[in-house]
Amino acid sequence: MSSPVTDSIFTRIIRGEVACQRVFENEHLIAFLDVAPLSWGHTLIVPKRQVERLEELNPDEAAEIGRVLPALARRILSATGAEGYNVLQNNGAVAGQVVPHVHFHIIPRSAGDGLGFRWNAQRVSADELTALAARINAIE
Amino acid sequence: MSSPVTDSIFTRIIRGEVACQRVFENEHLIAFLDVAPLSWGHTLIVPKRQVERLEELNPDEAAEIGRVLPALARRILSATGAEGYNVLQNNGAVAGQVVPHVHFHIIPRSAGDGLGFRWNAQRVSADELTALAARINAIE
Repeated sequence: MSSPVTDSIFTRIIRGEVACQRVFENEHLIAFLDVAPLSWGHTLIVPKRQVERLEELNPDEAAEIGRVLPALARRILSATGAEGYNVLQNNGAVAGQVVPHVHFHIIPRSAGDGLGFRWNAQRVSADELTALAARINAIE
Repeated sequence: MSSPVTDSIFTRIIRGEVACQRVFENEHLIAFLDVAPLSWGHTLIVPKRQVERLEELNPDEAAEIGRVLPALARRILSATGAEGYNVLQNNGAVAGQVVPHVHFHIIPRSAGDGLGFRWNAQRVSADELTALAARINAIE
């Protein structure tokens, strides 16, 4: 299928035009090691259809990504010996997205690795949360 | 079904014993606003079956979480006006997990919000990556 968008580096990997260290592949998606890892075993899961953001995937496509996460995470933990991991997926430059092709990170974590999300929790009132939930629930 | 584990705060929310501002629910999972949000619209998606970590979910359970992400993200963006968002899921205290019941965060993002993952990429050799991929691929 031709596309008006430029082929992403991930699409070129999927086509075999760029090499990768693949750790999983099926008809829907591919997973491979990040070449600039945040930690040992940092893996990317990429749907084969190139869309920029998660909200552009259809429900079945997004389900297929969820479906492979548990076993892939288990294999990465087993191979690396990491104690834990983050699953991270960024949408928009403002959220840290660099490659405009949906991808989920699995980032193995170990004590003292210096990684993590900056966790600056806010205080909000119950009334504000109630109003926001109503606003979200009013959207189809 | 009785369980040897202590009921998590999320299980108590799912049972209706603790209030929440719900933005989605089906037979598999619930989504509600975080009461200590990192940003306006910060939402948690929680499978109804209480397991601690993502790798303990079965593939169908994890697929159901993926399935609801695109539409839920669209509704949150529409209601909040945020430009982007992170999907984040933490496994293990070392990864920042606090509640021992699998949950995915949707964290709306806007310019200058001070949030984000600490992104300290490492240099690794092609040989190291090749060896690690072989190790992961050797695991069932």
